[in-house]
Amino acid sequence: MQSPQPPRESAPPALTERFQRIRATSEAICAPLQIEDYVIQSMPDASPPKWHLAHVSWFFETFVLQPFLRGYRVMDEAYDHLFNSYYETHGQPFPRASRGLLSRPGVAEVYRYRQHVDTAMGELLAQPPEEHGAEIVRRVELGLQHEQQHQELLLMDILHILAQNPLRPAYRTDLRPGPAQLPDEPHWRDHSGGLHQIGHHGEGFAFDCETPRHRQFLESFRLASRPVSCADYLAFMGDGGYARPELWLADGWNLIRQAGWRAPLYWQRTDGRWLEMTLGGLRPLDLQAPVCHISFYEADAYARWAGARLPSEAEWEIAARSQPIAGNLLESDHLHPVASPQAAPISQLYGDVWEWTASAYRPYPGFKPLPGSLGEYNGKFMCGQMVLRGGCCVTPRAHIRATYRNFFYPAMRWQFAGLRLAKEA
Amino acid sequence: MQSPQPPRESAPPALTERFQRIRATSEAICAPLQIEDYVIQSMPDASPPKWHLAHVSWFFETFVLQPFLRGYRVMDEAYDHLFNSYYETHGQPFPRASRGLLSRPGVAEVYRYRQHVDTAMGELLAQPPEEHGAEIVRRVELGLQHEQQHQELLLMDILHILAQNPLRPAYRTDLRPGPAQLPDEPHWRDHSGGLHQIGHHGEGFAFDCETPRHRQFLESFRLASRPVSCADYLAFMGDGGYARPELWLADGWNLIRQAGWRAPLYWQRTDGRWLEMTLGGLRPLDLQAPVCHISFYEADAYARWAGARLPSEAEWEIAARSQPIAGNLLESDHLHPVASPQAAPISQLYGDVWEWTASAYRPYPGFKPLPGSLGEYNGKFMCGQMVLRGGCCVTPRAHIRATYRNFFYPAMRWQFAGLRLAKEA
Amino acid sequence: MQSPQPPRESAPPALTERFQRIRATSEAICAPLQIEDYVIQSMPDASPPKWHLAHVSWFFETFVLQPFLRGYRVMDEAYDHLFNSYYETHGQPFPRASRGLLSRPGVAEVYRYRQHVDTAMGELLAQPPEEHGAEIVRRVELGLQHEQQHQELLLMDILHILAQNPLRPAYRTDLRPGPAQLPDEPHWRDHSGGLHQIGHHGEGFAFDCETPRHRQFLESFRLASRPVSCADYLAFMGDGGYARPELWLADGWNLIRQAGWRAPLYWQRTDGRWLEMTLGGLRPLDLQAPVCHISFYEADAYARWAGARLPSEAEWEIAARSQPIAGNLLESDHLHPVASPQAAPISQLYGDVWEWTASAYRPYPGFKPLPGSLGEYNGKFMCGQMVLRGGCCVTPRAHIRATYRNFFYPAMRWQFAGLRLAKEA
Amino acid sequence: MQSPQPPRESAPPALTERFQRIRATSEAICAPLQIEDYVIQSMPDASPPKWHLAHVSWFFETFVLQPFLRGYRVMDEAYDHLFNSYYETHGQPFPRASRGLLSRPGVAEVYRYRQHVDTAMGELLAQPPEEHGAEIVRRVELGLQHEQQHQELLLMDILHILAQNPLRPAYRTDLRPGPAQLPDEPHWRDHSGGLHQIGHHGEGFAFDCETPRHRQFLESFRLASRPVSCADYLAFMGDGGYARPELWLADGWNLIRQAGWRAPLYWQRTDGRWLEMTLGGLRPLDLQAPVCHISFYEADAYARWAGARLPSEAEWEIAARSQPIAGNLLESDHLHPVASPQAAPISQLYGDVWEWTASAYRPYPGFKPLPGSLGEYNGKFMCGQMVLRGGCCVTPRAHIRATYRNFFYPAMRWQFAGLRLAKEA
Repeated sequence: MQSPQPPRESAPPALTERFQRIRATSEAICAPLQIEDYVIQSMPDASPPKWHLAHVSWFFETFVLQPFLRGYRVMDEAYDHLFNSYYETHGQPFPRASRGLLSRPGVAEVYRYRQHVDTAMGELLAQPPEEHGAEIVRRVELGLQHEQQHQELLLMDILHILAQNPLRPAYRTDLRPGPAQLPDEPHWRDHSGGLHQIGHHGEGFAFDCETPRHRQFLESFRLASRPVSCADYLAFMGDGGYARPELWLADGWNLIRQAGWRAPLYWQRTDGRWLEMTLGGLRPLDLQAPVCHISFYEADAYARWAGARLPSEAEWEIAARSQPIAGNLLESDHLHPVASPQAAPISQLYGDVWEWTASAYRPYPGFKPLPGSLGEYNGKFMCGQMVLRGGCCVTPRAHIRATYRNFFYPAMRWQFAGLRLAKEA
Repeated sequence: MQSPQPPRESAPPALTERFQRIRATSEAICAPLQIEDYVIQSMPDASPPKWHLAHVSWFFETFVLQPFLRGYRVMDEAYDHLFNSYYETHGQPFPRASRGLLSRPGVAEVYRYRQHVDTAMGELLAQPPEEHGAEIVRRVELGLQHEQQHQELLLMDILHILAQNPLRPAYRTDLRPGPAQLPDEPHWRDHSGGLHQIGHHGEGFAFDCETPRHRQFLESFRLASRPVSCADYLAFMGDGGYARPELWLADGWNLIRQAGWRAPLYWQRTDGRWLEMTLGGLRPLDLQAPVCHISFYEADAYARWAGARLPSEAEWEIAARSQPIAGNLLESDHLHPVASPQAAPISQLYGDVWEWTASAYRPYPGFKPLPGSLGEYNGKFMCGQMVLRGGCCVTPRAHIRATYRNFFYPAMRWQFAGLRLAKEA
Repeated sequence: MQSPQPPRESAPPALTERFQRIRATSEAICAPLQIEDYVIQSMPDASPPKWHLAHVSWFFETFVLQPFLRGYRVMDEAYDHLFNSYYETHGQPFPRASRGLLSRPGVAEVYRYRQHVDTAMGELLAQPPEEHGAEIVRRVELGLQHEQQHQELLLMDILHILAQNPLRPAYRTDLRPGPAQLPDEPHWRDHSGGLHQIGHHGEGFAFDCETPRHRQFLESFRLASRPVSCADYLAFMGDGGYARPELWLADGWNLIRQAGWRAPLYWQRTDGRWLEMTLGGLRPLDLQAPVCHISFYEADAYARWAGARLPSEAEWEIAARSQPIAGNLLESDHLHPVASPQAAPISQLYGDVWEWTASAYRPYPGFKPLPGSLGEYNGKFMCGQMVLRGGCCVTPRAHIRATYRNFFYPAMRWQFAGLRLAKEA
Repeated sequence: MQSPQPPRESAPPALTERFQRIRATSEAICAPLQIEDYVIQSMPDASPPKWHLAHVSWFFETFVLQPFLRGYRVMDEAYDHLFNSYYETHGQPFPRASRGLLSRPGVAEVYRYRQHVDTAMGELLAQPPEEHGAEIVRRVELGLQHEQQHQELLLMDILHILAQNPLRPAYRTDLRPGPAQLPDEPHWRDHSGGLHQIGHHGEGFAFDCETPRHRQFLESFRLASRPVSCADYLAFMGDGGYARPELWLADGWNLIRQAGWRAPLYWQRTDGRWLEMTLGGLRPLDLQAPVCHISFYEADAYARWAGARLPSEAEWEIAARSQPIAGNLLESDHLHPVASPQAAPISQLYGDVWEWTASAYRPYPGFKPLPGSLGEYNGKFMCGQMVLRGGCCVTPRAHIRATYRNFFYPAMRWQFAGLRLAKEA
């Protein structure tokens, strides 16, 4: 007589709970939207909110449910085409710039799709097939980190959608206000050079691009105690910052002349005052808050004007890894950079604004992408983009860490990006 | 003691009733839509359905209510910018190609806007100010004809939106089917030349561009008894029609090579059969129905291939004005061209498909546009476009007449356009 | 014994002589150029001068020598590709916009090619094969008219090339100056309406597009006694002509805003004076000369501003055909419009500037293009363009006639184009 | 009585002699051109040969003669606009993409301009003002290195011009043929990691971007003994290299699909054979020669396909600095990559092809650009481009060194660029 099978163990309860919580957060982010808001693609780099909601579900379906849940039935076969973002080795992604042409599936249908996936995920996580348990946990973790990235993208894209509209509608009118704050002169903080270990190691999730941990030699350097503020940036603008070619990279100079840029994205001058379009609607500029929604070119030009430079990503990581991961992040519910509540030796490394670094987004020495189609997640974007560090006011707290490498093309500025100055010691 | 004022007369009851009926038709056309469908602008030439609904209301507000209804209050001042289509002398129209970037005002708000305008219009029509009565009637009539044009545009744009979607969703699944029909060889019908009167005169509404009635000398000519059918057009395609430069105007030849056109818009070949995307969804091609959704260039090339030519708009008008205004129009509820139910000396001049003519859309001799901003309605488009005649399967019955001049650029094909052959007598 | 063959007759000596003279004129036009000038294609619509010289020779080679001169050997087989302008039924034309990428064959080689063709043409014209004599004469005549068109294009393109250059080099510094001229108010000249015959008939060369002669009914009309002058046009500009949307066709208004047009092409304001780039270099504007280098949109807007309109091509033809063909044409050697030397009932119909008409370039009723590839000469361009009449200051005298239909897209203005006003009688 | 002034010393005779020699080389490079060839700009990234000849003279005029030769008179004031390449802080550069619109100044005039500058330079170098002697020597050296860069650009651009032409004209037919060569399997050569000094120091010219010398930690690595050959690359192509998305960076994959790239630039398949357009005309592909005219994307995809990677620029520099600077360079007069004449531990690091590295072109730690407008020389391009190392078959021998950093955008391939594989040790 055969001994009974031990019951298959379910995934760690923590994971199931995190799965539900993170999935719920995406829907909570969309709760203030009207159905019409879900449909708009305001530029090729952005996506309609309902596309985000469906795509992150497709990710679980494709990389977790299809391979590991026996008998899983997709809700609609066409979704594999519609909601594949860029996995060329998996199938034919629907053309990115045309995501805003799709009225169907509608919002209700997309929520049903989420429910369909969530139900199946619940089933899988309750009884994961033993032989794939570890891989399933790894992929679910990746899927959750992926969904958190899209939570940030959702808020970036929602702001971009609403900012196109002359009505300047607010996403929410109940955002938490920033602290009152007196002007604060930044100071320099010294860091010693030498041979440093950079990149992720050990426990805890990290994207493939944060590995392997490797040695890098750095000269001593200094980092500003806080990010550049709107007041600082106005001084640059007032000093002809946008009209002096010697401050600019050639590509940046050509861009600002062609596009007519004269201020950060979302700033507008009305009746002699600077206003800023935010997720809370159109507001007077908060002078003490970190400047936000600037391109790499603008960050770089500002630094040159200030007689400084941008930090490398290694410099930033060394400075940040001794700091607690706290700050104005998604959970702070400002959804906009705010001034630091107090002077500190160094502040705001995490949250408020992603900080442009001087580093091109390239593979670390010995980098190996994930196997299979998931290898397209990061590695194939390692050209032409710059690294940003530290998370911002719409980044989930649990999603950021000192080794996290975000990346955008140097001309992009709809992400919440600012800068912190560095210089030689 | 003053004698009582005679009660101000209301506008003719017929007008009020027509106003309500035509306004209701626009909303009925949109009834099958999901909210998401209302938001999409699938190409710069098209507009989101909710924009159409608002714009036609703005037209009444701007040209009737604002000048003539004392104390009228607009619902939102920003709408004058958002819903001005192209009246440059009235204000700053919101950029046409960006209409799809506006999620707000939402659909419900747009319907409230319609209600707001309708209520005020009811008030005005009940007691029009005596001294402006005739002008009000003229403008309301223009506004209604304008709204009927947008009813057709709505259906064109809805089809274009749904056709972008790989899901090929149907706008309605309960459309009236076309009649069964045996193949029917077209024959030639002779018309005698001479000095003819062309254009609108007398009672009844006409756009300014249909006037003045004027004399035009025509040689004798022949007109085909029916439009070119899909079966006819397949013969052209099978004979290498899209690959023979001698059949094409130079601009057309360049266009089809660059765009890769090989068939009418909305046709697709799947598993060896020709299918067509329609407002009723994806269907097998109806071979006996008039070919539809072709550009002027394709119509012209077909005619050359057939050893014939397109009729001039004057020739078409002469042939059509003796015919009753009847056919497959909006009220037929096919919403797609269908084969003619019976052979006739000449058939389908009205309805089914707009017929491309050989005539450039230019002013008639002595043409005077309407005064003021309404003069921008037609006159400023009289360059680079070709005239089409006869209405189509989505044209309201009360909107079409023998003198009606529709116009599109020669490359456009999302309108329901086909052709009828002509030749010298 | 066989009777001797009668000697084959050569083509009429007049034709041989004209052939040589017209071919020599093309080369005389290019004589002032530097070799570098021959190479430039300053925009896709223009062609390098050496391409013109080769293309017109290719025309004779392709349509006369290859079919009719027994044993003719082409100089280089690749030229059939390189110098085919747009005859899609003959072969693969080299892409038009890339003509300026070809440094080879060089200028000397192109002249050798001309010589090669001229020698063969001399041989053919000395002893044309009897059975093809008439066809050869027809085709040579067409080839000569074609070369004359390119003489005008050469001068248009040379001006455009030199005008791109900040050095503002003159093509020639010895051009004949215009006459001194007192301001002259134009007056209206009446023409009676009725049924008119329009188009070419009888002896003498005409392009296929000028035929067939046909009847057209016209209302009575009035034509201005002279073209609009630069002084007139400055008044339009001074009255806000380029800033008033009510004066413009929609396409024109969009164009001038996008392109930033504020004056005719080649005008520049320097130190408070208007200067004009001409074939004679940069010169002060001649206020009494006809305004030149304007688009159809500008001509149309000017006419609307002036309370008038453009004449139809039939109106123009009726007025012009009673006038002697004389004026400021190529042989006058001004190579720029000049003021009329004296007041006259009607002046400058021929020469000075091509006059934009209100007529779209469409086929005349019963139009038949030439057979074969030569049918591509005119017919395939009959869409989207407007007719201009009367020749200009760079048109060969022998090339123009009352029935001549020139055509350009409404946005083009590098041709010597101006306007004359018309109105209802 | 005053003692006589010691005669001012002239610049080192070596410099004067080098000046003359390098200036003469530029003209020798152009000697085989026809005048027409000098005029063409075949794409916005390229420049007409006569523009290069003038621009390098303008460089001496602007940065040496104007500041240091008392009484220097420019030949033409307009040249400061026309021949300024990109020095925004110096004046208004003529738009780069329009350099091919300038027929004047012509070739003869450009040579006169060169003579004018050379005469003045001779005068200055014979008696340099004492107080500026060292700066003059520095700037003349920079000007000569600059002219050598343009010698390479001249040959790149000449090839690109001639390759546009279906006649496939050869620049020269007397180029030195490459050596016969047996196939040679590459092997790996180990290099040990550790803390290395990278960048220029000490005597000898270097561009600012090669400094400062700084420490960089490297892991041990292996470098291939020779560059990838055409035979190697054909194997990649044969294995579906251009059709497998997993091999490509995302930007590269999009580019090759959009542009239709399926082989290196200048390769064409004719009658079943691969041919290559070269400065010696169209030739059969040399299978043993290094593959050339590929983009960074293609180099990167090849490396991934080969299970290897591109070397970093530091790795390349460490390997190269122990090697003699010799190889197939400009003076070899092949003007095309050729197979290495013999097996060697490592070969062809210098010459043949620029080798794409894995390194983005960014400033070295502590980088300081030159003062003034000359600071625009390199620094402002440090974004979006990749570093290439080692010179190529059209690089002057005296111009290359181990620390030399060349840079191009990843999509560019008209430079003579190939690759060498690297991998972890």
